[in-house]
This record gives sequence, structure tokens and C-alpha cells, in this order.
Amino acid sequence: MYDLLNTINGPKDIKKLSVEQLPQLADETRSALINRISNIGGHNGPNLGIVETTVALHYVFDSPKDKLVFDVSHQCYPHKILTGRKEAYIDPAHFFDVTGYTNPLESEHDVFTIGHTSTSVSLALGLAKARDLRKADENIIAVIGDGSLSGGEALEALDYAGEYQGNLIIVANDNDQSIAENHGGLYKSLKALRESNGKSENNIFKGFGLDYRYLEDGHDTKKLVELFESVKGIDHPVVLHIHTIKGKGLAFAEANREMWHAGGPFNPEDGSPKGEMGEGDTTVFDNLKKLLDTNDKAVVLNAATPMGLGFVKGVREEYVARGQFVDVGIAEENAVAMSSGIEKNGGTAVFGTFAPFFQRTYDQLSHDVALNNSSATMLVLEPGVYGMNSNTHIALCDIQMFAHIPNFVYFAPASKEEFEQMFKFAVNQKEHPVGIRVPGKFTSSGKADDTDYSVLTNKIEKSGSDAAIFAVGPLLPMAIKTAEEVDKKTGKKITVVNPRFVSGLDEELLTKLIASHKVVITIEDGELQSGYGQTIASFYGDKDMKVINHGISKKFHTDFVPEELLAECGMSVEKLVAEVEKYL
Amino acid sequence: MYDLLNTINGPKDIKKLSVEQLPQLADETRSALINRISNIGGHNGPNLGIVETTVALHYVFDSPKDKLVFDVSHQCYPHKILTGRKEAYIDPAHFFDVTGYTNPLESEHDVFTIGHTSTSVSLALGLAKARDLRKADENIIAVIGDGSLSGGEALEALDYAGEYQGNLIIVANDNDQSIAENHGGLYKSLKALRESNGKSENNIFKGFGLDYRYLEDGHDTKKLVELFESVKGIDHPVVLHIHTIKGKGLAFAEANREMWHAGGPFNPEDGSPKGEMGEGDTTVFDNLKKLLDTNDKAVVLNAATPMGLGFVKGVREEYVARGQFVDVGIAEENAVAMSSGIEKNGGTAVFGTFAPFFQRTYDQLSHDVALNNSSATMLVLEPGVYGMNSNTHIALCDIQMFAHIPNFVYFAPASKEEFEQMFKFAVNQKEHPVGIRVPGKFTSSGKADDTDYSVLTNKIEKSGSDAAIFAVGPLLPMAIKTAEEVDKKTGKKITVVNPRFVSGLDEELLTKLIASHKVVITIEDGELQSGYGQTIASFYGDKDMKVINHGISKKFHTDFVPEELLAECGMSVEKLVAEVEKYL
Repeated sequence: MYDLLNTINGPKDIKKLSVEQLPQLADETRSALINRISNIGGHNGPNLGIVETTVALHYVFDSPKDKLVFDVSHQCYPHKILTGRKEAYIDPAHFFDVTGYTNPLESEHDVFTIGHTSTSVSLALGLAKARDLRKADENIIAVIGDGSLSGGEALEALDYAGEYQGNLIIVANDNDQSIAENHGGLYKSLKALRESNGKSENNIFKGFGLDYRYLEDGHDTKKLVELFESVKGIDHPVVLHIHTIKGKGLAFAEANREMWHAGGPFNPEDGSPKGEMGEGDTTVFDNLKKLLDTNDKAVVLNAATPMGLGFVKGVREEYVARGQFVDVGIAEENAVAMSSGIEKNGGTAVFGTFAPFFQRTYDQLSHDVALNNSSATMLVLEPGVYGMNSNTHIALCDIQMFAHIPNFVYFAPASKEEFEQMFKFAVNQKEHPVGIRVPGKFTSSGKADDTDYSVLTNKIEKSGSDAAIFAVGPLLPMAIKTAEEVDKKTGKKITVVNPRFVSGLDEELLTKLIASHKVVITIEDGELQSGYGQTIASFYGDKDMKVINHGISKKFHTDFVPEELLAECGMSVEKLVAEVEKYL
Repeated sequence: MYDLLNTINGPKDIKKLSVEQLPQLADETRSALINRISNIGGHNGPNLGIVETTVALHYVFDSPKDKLVFDVSHQCYPHKILTGRKEAYIDPAHFFDVTGYTNPLESEHDVFTIGHTSTSVSLALGLAKARDLRKADENIIAVIGDGSLSGGEALEALDYAGEYQGNLIIVANDNDQSIAENHGGLYKSLKALRESNGKSENNIFKGFGLDYRYLEDGHDTKKLVELFESVKGIDHPVVLHIHTIKGKGLAFAEANREMWHAGGPFNPEDGSPKGEMGEGDTTVFDNLKKLLDTNDKAVVLNAATPMGLGFVKGVREEYVARGQFVDVGIAEENAVAMSSGIEKNGGTAVFGTFAPFFQRTYDQLSHDVALNNSSATMLVLEPGVYGMNSNTHIALCDIQMFAHIPNFVYFAPASKEEFEQMFKFAVNQKEHPVGIRVPGKFTSSGKADDTDYSVLTNKIEKSGSDAAIFAVGPLLPMAIKTAEEVDKKTGKKITVVNPRFVSGLDEELLTKLIASHKVVITIEDGELQSGYGQTIASFYGDKDMKVINHGISKKFHTDFVPEELLAECGMSVEKLVAEVEKYL
């Protein structure tokens, strides 16, 4: 089954093959790929589409001397298979030897750890610059999908590449699809190029001053080899625009490219899911839908992750048609700044995306939104330790990034009901920008929240004395359980506080606690340094109150189990009970 | 002298004039503009070049119903003159009635407060979106200079505008100059368009799917009026590419566009400066030059602000030719990501820009640099209360943004000598990314610093007991003076600590202080919330040490005097002495 692939332990082995053997190597590589993704899931479509390109790249170029940078890493699986890591695709016992992203710790063929989009051309430009300072001659190759091209970092890099004088090969892998459909005018250019065999006018790449070549069949290994041979050692940047098919090789994936961008285990025969499909939480979607259905001046914006807000295919079309659902493509900066403009001209704007991608919008949140006090609502999806747990995607510093921005109110709901009330408040007020941390999964408090969030206060969830635990959002249950355990063990009642907002302090409540409490313990699901808890330590700094702050240690944690990482950082019921007991 | 201008109190008055009178209005507007900038300085070149465009815009469109967004605000002065604020340009008694940026508090004709580049198209898209939700019909106009086009936010917005279905008029004011010369391949496109009267192929705007019109003489009010009339009420986005002359009307400014981008008072006859020219501090430049001259694998990157690093015209050319000085254009994201690539391929990368513009690079610093532990050096110019003091440009949150990023070491030098030693350390190590806060003006400690910064420790500047003051960077003199005053008043010696690095704590030193001190006071030149001081409060939270944190209050402060704002926030020698005395 893997007759050729079995002989391939690195790029050098590929070069021993004839060009005529490459289609077979590609087929075997695709089989290995399908073996892994059908068993444990992963990024399906983008990797299926890049198999032949990757085979040809490694046939022509000399990695690791020549350097390959895969944008987002969503198309790096075939590269891993061909660079000594095939066992992780073939042998279930080795599936978990590799991550889903390029990783220099795994292989000398991986230059960077990458998980955010639109970074490859910039990173490659840096590699090229250093090469030129060293007066060396290796080829630098960036592989970037069409979806990633709309990101500001990629566009800045394409622009600078247009004046760079030195070797740089940009493989624009165009499968005419982002996660969902592409958005942005440049995709009209790409379409025209595909339809004209690369000859249409107003070529966006040439508009950036770049040299350009087009290949219509990105699955023809012979033509790919010829194309790469033709630019090997080139003395200036060139874009190789290669048309591929997302999901290539699995008919159901080719037919439904959005669903097959990524996912869990499936039966390779028909694509049917293996095992139970989890029921998605619809809280965010339900609330957004209610807003759009009751306020025709409201609009929900997203940046190429409509499914993150529940606006999957088949659902979003109606709202797109009404002008109330906007996908700006991978362009978070633009989405946040647009939100400011919408609010300033009589609209109601809600932008939501996953927490790690919000990192791209600090300046827009600060300068475009908060400085202008635009009352936009930002939904920060799945921040903290319960969010994505790869170091490429962790978002343990959302409080650090946002909570200190003037004018910005940042909420941390502890339940579905709190989220709903906070959201209602956010989209109905015109005073300030509001952010809401949206946990991956909501717990229900069982009763509606009727709090007036125009007054920012913390909530005492349990009243007691001696010790108080402030628990941010998803950690509230841990604090409550701690209090219950303490009560059970000692008969003493301690206080549990749900801060509800983390962009400031409820000084009245904090002051009141002094009379009857000796210690305040804070627990939060993000980084300790510069987090919420430290603002409380500062408040009590010169008062008669001990403060113990717990948060995640400062590190790019990866592949962790949330409860384990929390416990390592002092946050478990057991550890907290012991800590509290010292002060009773 | 201002025969026509005297009759203009807003756009309605301009419409009463005939098209034939507009050149005179433009001349008078330019005279008023020169009156102000020659007396108090400001952004010269961009405003001189946009006079006729602005006159024509207000002649054709109906502000404030129609909405104008001026990118960076560097070209908003004529707009201010024509929208009821001419006294601030004509009458010295009113010069300080207006800011240098668009400002909704000043006029209903200003929609946003703006000071960062490349935001106008996004903000305008938001205004357009809200208009369309309201089913209204006003024109939305973004005015953006060619220099700003290279920024990621602008490129993302141009891309999305390319698919937007509704009125949006993008005036691309092309004077073929950023602050310094432009950088990026798109400027080849603009040049080709200028040279072909807008007809060259591979039009970058059309590449983004946008409609496009070209006007060669951007100082011909009649043609400008015709152009604007032709697109008034247009039902889709259109780019009006207008060729103008930066510095128009002042021969010396037209001849030296970089020097005349902005500056202080001058004699309008010959451009000679009025009054003394301050001597620039050359510390940063001297150290960068030494690096480049002794390490041919080293490169200094900047993003359209070469003068910020001392690489002015006439100086930088040599280093550009050697490939050791790179200007990526207004594209901070690309510069930071490139730095990572340079370090990963055997080069030494230093990127420097002004602190407010570093805000655009959080994700690149975190994901592209720090996650990959690339040992690039980041020079954060003029952060804190002594940096720029307009709310559009303040950077009081650099410690909040950067200090918590894992792997990143963030230094805060208190003297020129410390900066030099930290810089030497940063560019010679390959362990971690390093950032250095670079104050606007260095004070000399008078003696060389030979600290080994691979070991991160705080420095005891004065040894004492009872009270210790931790003073970040530029506030060290305040702490020392406080200690001296306390000594003078009470005969007691207190401790003064210079943290030197603000991305972590010197726990050994902090622990030692407990035995002989009752209070630690922290002072810092940035925001209090989530700043350096609060990490110290957290450390001492459960120990026998009082902590008092001082930092700047959470607000978009503007037009402040640093010492006054510091004092307001508890930071003056007098206030600190009183505070210390309570603990002696």
C-alpha cells in the first residue's frame, strides 16, 4: 500500500524517484493522510489539496537548506509525511507523536511554529533577508492559501516583497475557499486569473509589483515540477499561482468544502462521522439571531469564522441577504475598525472571533474603537485555559490585552444567563465599547439574570467571613465547591465573589470585605502576570488584607488538560481548601 | 487677504461661490494654513498638498450629512479651516483652540478622533454599512494618502471595499511620498498609473476589485469638482486617484518633502527655522550604527519612521545599499514578523518604531516572534508619559501590552548607559526576544554600565530601610530625589530600586526587603492597571509588606504636561515624601 512512501524518510529519498513515479508517491501520501484524519480528525480539505504540490516542492527544492514556510500550518501534513514523520500518519501508535502544526522541535524541515494565518510571506521575507546578509543562496518558499491572502500581515508582506531584491518564491495555493467562502475584492482577481489561465488584467500580485506565473492543474506533479524547476534559484520574488482542489481525493470533501475544512474522525468511504457528534452550544447564535431579528440596524461581523458564531452554511445566507451578517474575510483589523464606524453612524455592531485572533486587533480596539468611545460589542470566543490548547492557538492573555484599555468594559460571564444579560446590555447601550468573554461551553445558573450592567459591580455568590475567593468566569464553580468543602470540613462559611467585569474593581465591595475577612484569594483562567487578580492585590496593597493571586504561569503552554494546568498553577478545590484553612 | 475665506463659516458658505472663485478660496486657505504652521509648526507637506482637494470636496459634498474621514488626520487642516475653525489658523490668539487631528469635540464635521495611519477606509466602510442599514443615502468619503496605503488595516479595508455593495468614495491622495520615500511594490503600480494618466495595467485598486478614476492635476479645483460631481451618490465603492504635490505652495517644502512632512515654526519666505533648533539625542542612532558597522549580518528595520532611529536622509543611504537598513513602509506587522525570520536564519534583527505604532504588532510579537523564541530586538520609542501627549498618540500601556508575553524580556533603562548595555546584550544573545523601552530623552548616569543582563535582577540604587521605592526607567530621578528629601527632613535613609526589567520580578531582592522594610512604593510612567507595580503588589500579597502602586490613571489623556499628570496620579517628590513619612 505504501510501496514508495515506505522508502521515503526525507526529501533526499524523493529525489531518487523519477518524475513518472511522483503521482504514485502523491497517491500514497494522500492515503497516509486520509488514514490519520479519518481516524483522529484534523484539517482535512487544505491538506488533501496540497499533496501533489508538496511532493513536487520536495522533489525540486532541497529542504532543510531551502526553507519552506507553510501559512497557518493548515497545509503542512503532506510535508510532515514526506519529511520523516510518516509513521504519525500510518501507524495509530504514533498518531500523537506530531502536532497539527509545523514544529521545529519535530523536524529540521520545520522552520517555525505557526498557527495564525497570513504570516508566511513575512516570515519568509525575514529568512530571505538573513540569507542575503549571509551572502548565501538557498531558496525561500512561502506556501500560502488563498484564504490567508486577505489578512493585513500577508498583504503588507506581499507589498514589501514587491520591492524586495532577492530570491523568494511565494506559492499561492488557490483552492477558491477560505474556511467558508472567501470575502474581499481580491478574490474577484483570483477568479479572473483562474478563468484566463493567469492572463487576466489587473492582476493583484502584479499590482504589488510581483513577478507571476500561473498553473491551472495543481495536481499534475509533472507540471508542478517544471514550474518549480523554472524558478529554483530565481533572483527576485515570484508568485506561483497554483489552482488546486480543496479536499482533493475525497468526493464528499470536494463537494462540501466548508464542512470538510477541518473536523473529527470519519469513515473514508462516505464521510460519515465516526462516533457521536457533540451537540453544539447555541447560546451565542441564539442571542445574535434575536438581536438581528429585532433590530434591523444591527449587524454581526465576523472574520472568516462564521461557524464560531453559529452562522453555518444554510443559516447565514438569510442574514447576509438582509445586510445583517458580514464576513470580511481573514481581516480582523478591518472588522473591528468597521464596528467603530457602524456605531458612529447609527448602527449596532457586534464583532466576534476566537480569542487568539483578537490579538491582531489591539490597535483597532484601542485607537479606532475605544478612543472614539464607539459602543461596539466584541465577543471574545473561548479565551483562557478552556479555549484551544495548542501553543499556536492559546489565548491566556485576553484580560492582559483588553482589560486595561480606557473606556472599554470587559465582562466575564460565569453562566449562560449572565452572558445573555450582559449581551443585552452591550447591544442596547451607546456609552462605551463592551467586550464579553465567551467560554467554549456555557453552564447554566438555572435562573435568569436581571442585573443592570450599566452599574458595574461584583456579585457575592456566597456570603461568609475570614476568606473570600474571587473567581473569574468559568472558575466560579471551583470557588463554590471550595467553599462547600471548607464548610463541610470546618463548619465555616467563606465568601465567594463573581467579579462579572474584569476591566476594573468594585471598590465598595472590596472595602467592605476588610472588616470581616483576612484573605482574598483570586483565581482566573488566564495568565497570572498583569491579570485580573493583580489589580485586586494592588487595591489591598496598603490595607489590612492578605491577597493570594492564582493564574496560569507565564509560558506558551501546549497540549494541556485544563484541570491539570489549573492545578499545577494552584487552582484546584483541594489546593484552595488547604489554602483557605490557613486563614480560618 | 482673506476676502473669500472671511465669508466661509462652513461648507454651506462654500457652495455659494462659483467654481471660478474656488482657486482664490484655495489660495486663501493655503495662506491661513501657512500662517499657522509657520508660527507653531505642525504637519506641513500633507496639508499644503490637499488644499484644493478639500475645497472641492466641501463644494460638492454636503458635510456633515455626507461624511469625510481623513486618514491619520495629517491632511485635515484645510478641512478645519473650511468647517468653522479658520480663526485657529488666522488668529494667533486662537491657535490652540484646535488640535492637530480630527476631533468630534471641535466640530460636527469631524466624525472620529484619528492619529494612527491606515484606518480611514475601514472606518468609512463602517459608516457606509450603518448608512445602508438605515436605508439612508449620504456619501461616505475616505481621504487616504499614498503612504498610508501600505498598512495592513488599509489593505484589508481596500480588499473588503472591493466586494462592498454601496456608496463609498476613496480619495487616494497620491503625492508620491510617505514621511520618507515610499516602500512597497504597490508604489510601482501608483507610479505607473501616474505616468499613464491612470491607464497602466495591473492597477492595484482594480486588483482589489475596485472601480477607479484618475486625476493628474490634483490642484485644479475645476477638475476636482467635476470628478467629485461625477461620483456623488455613486452606488458602489470607487477610488479617486488624485495626483498632488506634497508641500504645494512653498518651494522649499516641495523640494524637500521628507524634511517638510512636519516640523516646528519657520519663516515662510525661505523655510529657515524660527528660534533655536534642539539638538537631537543620538544615543539610539550611535548604537545602531555601531552594531551595523561591526556585524554585517545585522539589520535595522523600521516602518516608515527612519528619522525616529536617527537614519535621516543622507545618512541611511549607505546602510540601505549594504542591505542593513530596511524600511518596509507603514507595515509594522510585516517588520516584526520579518525580524523573527531574520533571527531564524542567521541574522541579527532590530526593529524600532514609536510606541503607539507598536500597538499594531501584538500578535506578531506574541505568535511570530515570542512563540518561536526568535531573539529579535524591539526598540519601543518614547513610551509612557514622556512620549507623545495627544490622545491620538499616547502610549501609556506598553508595559501592559508586552511585559506579560512569555519568552519576551522587556527592559526599562533609566540612563543612557543602561540602554547601551541592554542593547549590547540584546543584539548579542540568541536566547529570547528582547524589548527595550527607549525614552524620548536620555539622562546620563555618568558612569558606564557593565551589568550582565543575561541575569535579570533589579538594582538597588540607594540602600536604606523602612520604605523602598521601585521607580521604572525615567522616574528613577524622582525616586532618588524623594530619598534625598526624606533624608534631609528626617535623617532616615530609604531604599531606591531601579527594576531595569519589567517583564518579571527579582524575587530574591523582593524577599530580602521584607526583613527591613514596611512598605514598597512603585512609580511608573505608564498606566497603573496591569502595569509593573501591580506585579509587585501581587508578590507581597500574602507577606508582611505594604505596597502602594502609583501609575497613570486609566483614561485617554491628552495635551498634558507630564509632570502635572504624574503629580495628579500621586507621583511627585512632595507627595512621595509625605507618603514615605507615614511609614518611618
